[in-house]
Amino acid sequence: MIFTSSGAGYHSESKAKEYKHVCKRACQKAVDRLRAGGMALEAVTAALIELEDSPFTNAGTGSNLNLSGEIECDASIMDGKSLNYGAVGALSGIKNPVLVARRLLTRLSVGKGAEQWAISHGIPACPTEKMTTKFSLSGYKRNKRKMELAEQVEMKRKRQSCEHENNSACLDTVGAVVVDREGNVAAAVSSGGLAMKHPGRVGQAAHYGCGCWAENARDISLYSTAVSTSGSGEHLIRTMLARECSTAMQAENTHQALLEAMQNKFISSPFLAGEDCVLGGVIVLRCCTCGEAQRSEDIQAVLVEFLWSHTTESMCVGYMSAQDSKARTHISRLPPGAVAGQSLAIEGGVCRLGTVSD
Amino acid sequence: MIFTSSGAGYHSESKAKEYKHVCKRACQKAVDRLRAGGMALEAVTAALIELEDSPFTNAGTGSNLNLSGEIECDASIMDGKSLNYGAVGALSGIKNPVLVARRLLTRLSVGKGAEQWAISHGIPACPTEKMTTKFSLSGYKRNKRKMELAEQVEMKRKRQSCEHENNSACLDTVGAVVVDREGNVAAAVSSGGLAMKHPGRVGQAAHYGCGCWAENARDISLYSTAVSTSGSGEHLIRTMLARECSTAMQAENTHQALLEAMQNKFISSPFLAGEDCVLGGVIVLRCCTCGEAQRSEDIQAVLVEFLWSHTTESMCVGYMSAQDSKARTHISRLPPGAVAGQSLAIEGGVCRLGTVSD
Repeated sequence: MIFTSSGAGYHSESKAKEYKHVCKRACQKAVDRLRAGGMALEAVTAALIELEDSPFTNAGTGSNLNLSGEIECDASIMDGKSLNYGAVGALSGIKNPVLVARRLLTRLSVGKGAEQWAISHGIPACPTEKMTTKFSLSGYKRNKRKMELAEQVEMKRKRQSCEHENNSACLDTVGAVVVDREGNVAAAVSSGGLAMKHPGRVGQAAHYGCGCWAENARDISLYSTAVSTSGSGEHLIRTMLARECSTAMQAENTHQALLEAMQNKFISSPFLAGEDCVLGGVIVLRCCTCGEAQRSEDIQAVLVEFLWSHTTESMCVGYMSAQDSKARTHISRLPPGAVAGQSLAIEGGVCRLGTVSD
Repeated sequence: MIFTSSGAGYHSESKAKEYKHVCKRACQKAVDRLRAGGMALEAVTAALIELEDSPFTNAGTGSNLNLSGEIECDASIMDGKSLNYGAVGALSGIKNPVLVARRLLTRLSVGKGAEQWAISHGIPACPTEKMTTKFSLSGYKRNKRKMELAEQVEMKRKRQSCEHENNSACLDTVGAVVVDREGNVAAAVSSGGLAMKHPGRVGQAAHYGCGCWAENARDISLYSTAVSTSGSGEHLIRTMLARECSTAMQAENTHQALLEAMQNKFISSPFLAGEDCVLGGVIVLRCCTCGEAQRSEDIQAVLVEFLWSHTTESMCVGYMSAQDSKARTHISRLPPGAVAGQSLAIEGGVCRLGTVSD
């Protein structure tokens, strides 16, 4: 089963259709891999490539441009079976950052060095022009013009305000979580980062424990869990939100556990004291093959619970299992009257997958 | 009080003197700041600058050269009061990476972008030649020659073996933890990374939760804690050792808690399954102004416990309080017969500091 997000932020009705479309395509790509016997790590990579290739998401093609008009991407991936983790930060010149993270899979590599490593390992170079879209370029030019008009002395303040104005666009980090038919989980995340960011700045998508997390069940952990986050990089980093949500998912009641994690470890986190607007969203998946889910000796059922939660105005999600003929997508919105950054939305579902035990 | 480490690794008798000297100087610099009323963050920065400037440590000047013969440094710093955290990764051309991390203090910045940011914020550029020492250059040339001699096909294997041979040098990551007279804690770490590493590779010193951690006491945490780590980057990253040790330090018995954390969360960590040689060391400090430590209304006593533990052959530490006339230094070694990477050494002390309550 695949569960994707094309970002937590603000989705106007006009944009909603595009975001749902890309989630749908990403789900389909992942399920194609799963049906062909692919493992969770392969499927999550396939979903991310589709999400990165969309010109509407702030990841891969269409990423925000930084202060120098360059694209610098962050991405990471984690395999719940081996617990291997790979990440790239401030990576330019590569169309699909998630592919480089996948190849590294034991470390974080950044900047020019990461680009050269990728090319020497057979991942083709891609010029910034090819990854720049009409939309991302016009956004950059608009911001740049504002900054040039501003007094030199006011430069810094203006830049911060530009970053702020672009927050809705910035938050379109993409991610996915997957469980394969053997019950292995994987998670990935990818982002172009803040518009007009300083070159070299690395966001949550490249931070261990912050952008994504995946852990298969083992000894003391009854459940396999996978998490991918989206939102304000600084908030997601300081709270290590992906890992916190994964830990919380070992509790009996997933809905209650995620609600408490979002409330106590995110909105009211001591690491964000003084912040009155904490913006982020998570997609969470947990599964077990244990207890009541077991059906026979040969065929085991995997019980999968999937939940999403966000403090942003809205969040676009999609999900699909190998048994489904097509993906379901949804734009989740805060309840009427709720204040973004202070309140949260939480929803989810359950599905039962037939698996082949070895 | 300041507590420093010039690295966990293997310290021959001939090198021991130099390592102890630099720890002593770093302690003195930090205490000078504390005596002048400086806060923990200032004092820990002063200690790190001294450790980075030593040509004997693998941090700042004297850092290992990467595959291209360049120096790329990682460093991070955390303030227990504000919980702010700053980090740089793969940073070239700046003499004191910790200074850039200190200035950033809310994010991770990497590579060329981080260098340009530093220079535009008044931190002077420093050419690689000036940061290269006779020792680091001869090490690089020796490795390079070996690699050139090796068959093209064997290149990769040889490189790995080079990295392995240099492990003793690689592990000289430096770090420090501080508590000031108001009871605030801070921690920092700095490293030149693996010898002959791929350009762009970022080690534990730039990873949130892995290289250093500092948290003042608050509501649910009775104690202020600060941790700095040294050792094999991959092991320290995957286990998030700094944060794990900090969490463990809320237990009643510090010695027992650190022993269990090093055993269960490091040597036997599920994140390092299959690794039979887990190399690392930590310096840990915890303090409280509560309970029996209180003496009068105006003058409070801060009870400081400081511990070090390592799975490497040896670790060099130094410590000093504002009441001491000079620093104490020590080369800690594994007990006779203990196997590096599988066993650990643990030691520590307690001191009582007079503080001025506001």
